[in-house]
Amino acid sequence: MSTHYERVMEMYREVSDLYGALALMGWDQETYMPPKGAASRGRQLATLSGMAHERITSDEMRAALDSARSESLAADEEVNIREIARSSDRAVKVPVDLVKSIAETSSAAIGVWIKARQEDDFPAFAPWIDKLVTLQRQVAEAVGYEDEPYDALLDEYEPYATTKDTAAVFESIRGPLVDLVQRIASSGVRPRTDFLERNYPIDDQRRMGVTAAERMGFDFEAGRLDISPHPFCTHMGVQDVRLTTRYSETLPMQSFYGVIHEAGHGLYEQGHDPVHEGTPRGASVSLGIHESQSRLWENMVGRSRAFWRFFFPEFAAVFPDQAADVSEEEVYAAVNEVKPSLIRVEADEITYNLHILLRFEIERGLFMNEFRAGDLSAVWNEKMKAFLGIEPPGDRDGVLQDIHWSHGSFGYFPTYTLGNLYAAQFYRAAERDLPGLSDQIARGELLPLRDWLRDHIHRPGMTHRAGDLVRHVTGEPLTADCFLAYIDGKYRSLYRL
Amino acid sequence: MSTHYERVMEMYREVSDLYGALALMGWDQETYMPPKGAASRGRQLATLSGMAHERITSDEMRAALDSARSESLAADEEVNIREIARSSDRAVKVPVDLVKSIAETSSAAIGVWIKARQEDDFPAFAPWIDKLVTLQRQVAEAVGYEDEPYDALLDEYEPYATTKDTAAVFESIRGPLVDLVQRIASSGVRPRTDFLERNYPIDDQRRMGVTAAERMGFDFEAGRLDISPHPFCTHMGVQDVRLTTRYSETLPMQSFYGVIHEAGHGLYEQGHDPVHEGTPRGASVSLGIHESQSRLWENMVGRSRAFWRFFFPEFAAVFPDQAADVSEEEVYAAVNEVKPSLIRVEADEITYNLHILLRFEIERGLFMNEFRAGDLSAVWNEKMKAFLGIEPPGDRDGVLQDIHWSHGSFGYFPTYTLGNLYAAQFYRAAERDLPGLSDQIARGELLPLRDWLRDHIHRPGMTHRAGDLVRHVTGEPLTADCFLAYIDGKYRSLYRL
Repeated sequence: MSTHYERVMEMYREVSDLYGALALMGWDQETYMPPKGAASRGRQLATLSGMAHERITSDEMRAALDSARSESLAADEEVNIREIARSSDRAVKVPVDLVKSIAETSSAAIGVWIKARQEDDFPAFAPWIDKLVTLQRQVAEAVGYEDEPYDALLDEYEPYATTKDTAAVFESIRGPLVDLVQRIASSGVRPRTDFLERNYPIDDQRRMGVTAAERMGFDFEAGRLDISPHPFCTHMGVQDVRLTTRYSETLPMQSFYGVIHEAGHGLYEQGHDPVHEGTPRGASVSLGIHESQSRLWENMVGRSRAFWRFFFPEFAAVFPDQAADVSEEEVYAAVNEVKPSLIRVEADEITYNLHILLRFEIERGLFMNEFRAGDLSAVWNEKMKAFLGIEPPGDRDGVLQDIHWSHGSFGYFPTYTLGNLYAAQFYRAAERDLPGLSDQIARGELLPLRDWLRDHIHRPGMTHRAGDLVRHVTGEPLTADCFLAYIDGKYRSLYRL
Repeated sequence: MSTHYERVMEMYREVSDLYGALALMGWDQETYMPPKGAASRGRQLATLSGMAHERITSDEMRAALDSARSESLAADEEVNIREIARSSDRAVKVPVDLVKSIAETSSAAIGVWIKARQEDDFPAFAPWIDKLVTLQRQVAEAVGYEDEPYDALLDEYEPYATTKDTAAVFESIRGPLVDLVQRIASSGVRPRTDFLERNYPIDDQRRMGVTAAERMGFDFEAGRLDISPHPFCTHMGVQDVRLTTRYSETLPMQSFYGVIHEAGHGLYEQGHDPVHEGTPRGASVSLGIHESQSRLWENMVGRSRAFWRFFFPEFAAVFPDQAADVSEEEVYAAVNEVKPSLIRVEADEITYNLHILLRFEIERGLFMNEFRAGDLSAVWNEKMKAFLGIEPPGDRDGVLQDIHWSHGSFGYFPTYTLGNLYAAQFYRAAERDLPGLSDQIARGELLPLRDWLRDHIHRPGMTHRAGDLVRHVTGEPLTADCFLAYIDGKYRSLYRL
């Protein structure tokens, strides 16, 4: 006779296989699907999502989860029950009609957003933000929250995090970052970047990115790299992890760091314990922790002085003409140029976080009724001025730049900066555990770091909640100190502050 | 209140969306899936197939189908109920354990077959054929049949066809084909083929294939062409139809006719009535009818004198060096070279059918207990000698050449020759309805033929059973006469018989 636990897992295996199929369908949609395939793909995605929803909320699943809780469970089993119950609870609480309503509204909103952005016409889009905020507020009410509705939304992407804690840590970096950006601006130091505007053929860019990802230990027998307009990493299994990037002949570093970033996500997915494949115990903790893995590789490793010691000859070998008059030091400085700019996805590793803080404050304010969507253009520009000292010439490069709100996604943005903060904490712990890490990187030996991340972060899966994981690995709770120390050290020397 | 018919269709829509997902998973497995992804993909395919099976055999589906039969239905609705009931009946009859047993045995058999083929060791594989025949015999007993067990297997691929009728029509072509091949051999005429052994870069081959498929009216906004070891056509929707081919730099005509062949299949899928998408009314009739569409384009059109009138300049433009000393007439003769050969997939349009007849007779004999798998090497070689006058030097190029039997697929091969016979019948009807068809083809105007096929064969979907469709379109039942007349006319002049 099987236990209730086994019955839960048997049912969940079907959910997980549906997720695998859905991941492939989503990947294909962004990479190879012919344009006219969109309608049937949309229908199939909806049907399979519905089947997964049915299974995770079924009476049988609910009863088995309840009964399993009173069984004597091993630690790994407890993790699975805790997290499957969490997903099930949330799915049960949000009415199916509300989910459908959000899907339909968002589907229409995306079209409006695309047009509004093209025509720089925020007033056309603003009412749709209000509609989606109203719907997401209903989600928050249905899900429940401790202090404020935004808690329930954040919780979707960063489970167990609270708005209050997130706000506190964000506030602790705002001042220092604004200050640092100003000091950099007035330092008078300007890295040379002309050589990055040369022509870099796409095949060669691809080769360089693959070389870096292979060095990181990304297994191309258990993964791929393709092209999509919006880069991402997805997985259909621990041995089937897919990265995408985009290429522009005159932006070699966009694809290069894009690939390193996505490969960082990919290593997390490839690093899960195969024994626990398809269960929460073998899955990632949160978007913030996921982002810590991509940012750690992209910034702490890939934008380090040590990295360019080993990688500059590779770069010069792939691009002998473009790099003919460039030094190792100049590449290092160029890829770390700090400059206030309007577009989040093009921002450097310091100002990026100010873009996120701005969005977090706006989202929180919307759900606190501090302002309505109609005010957002003014609020946005005011905050840009305060944080970065610049203002967009139009909403296209301001409040209209991101797709997230048209998706009805509120609570997603903060995970990007949480990722940066976690990354700095994890990296410091890795430096502690791996003496000579920087020398290893300078020799191109990236596997010890990959293995450390695997042991401490990837393999445990969802064993620990995000906050517990960082405490477990670093001995400290979430804090901005490591990140601030990291950028202070790095940019002090780069900009001779 | 919805009718029982509506309830059936509502449930079937889910089945159909699962099929769409399964088709994508199968396509990806052959094209882009990283090698280590196989295990999780296998599990996901099994889970989703199981869900489709559950739905089509559920008590609710069975009851709704039963009740729908007594409703007053429109003609299209009757087609849907007839064909969904057919699938449901078959799925209900075959025990799930038997399906599983076949999947497991076949999964092991494929490995044995690969090794046996490499080592030219048929005795190692023979017991697995016996095992799979025993299992498929159980399928036949479960499904039921009129005259002989093979009926039930053939019916899986060519619904409503019988072994007896198929055997009769096959027997009517065996003598004439054996005779024609001999007359061609003794004609002394040998087309020049040296220029096809030159180097044809793969990018250019691709371009040439795409040009032909576009001319045929294949819509690349609603489809793709990729590379896979075994070429195929699959679809995730009427607007998402995917072809694959394989390339060898010294076999330009393999990929060229491969693409035309798959695009012929693709046009059938793109030609279904979008109103009926995802229902039997909007689906293909049988493998034989499907193959008629690919063979008609590949052979009757693509290997015609008229086709090369328009396409020779394209060929010479893409391959100016390789075609420098070649005439239009020489290309036409080369792509129609008839020569007994050992490997089915490399055979010309005449001898191909003798390869099929041989397999059909062997399969039927196995299920009639005329011989056992252990005898097959001898039986194979004897038939090769009788049909084509040649014998394989080893089983690798004989009885071990095809993967089908290791899949447990018996009853599939005959659909290839049925396709050739149907194709000739349809093509004669098209010539009757489209005066000047050959002149149109010579001018590269292929859309009138595409549209005729669409109107008469693609749009009706499963309205007619295969036998009825050919009668409806051509005025005659399945017959070999058209095919024999077609090849007689064509090869008489090519080989000056």
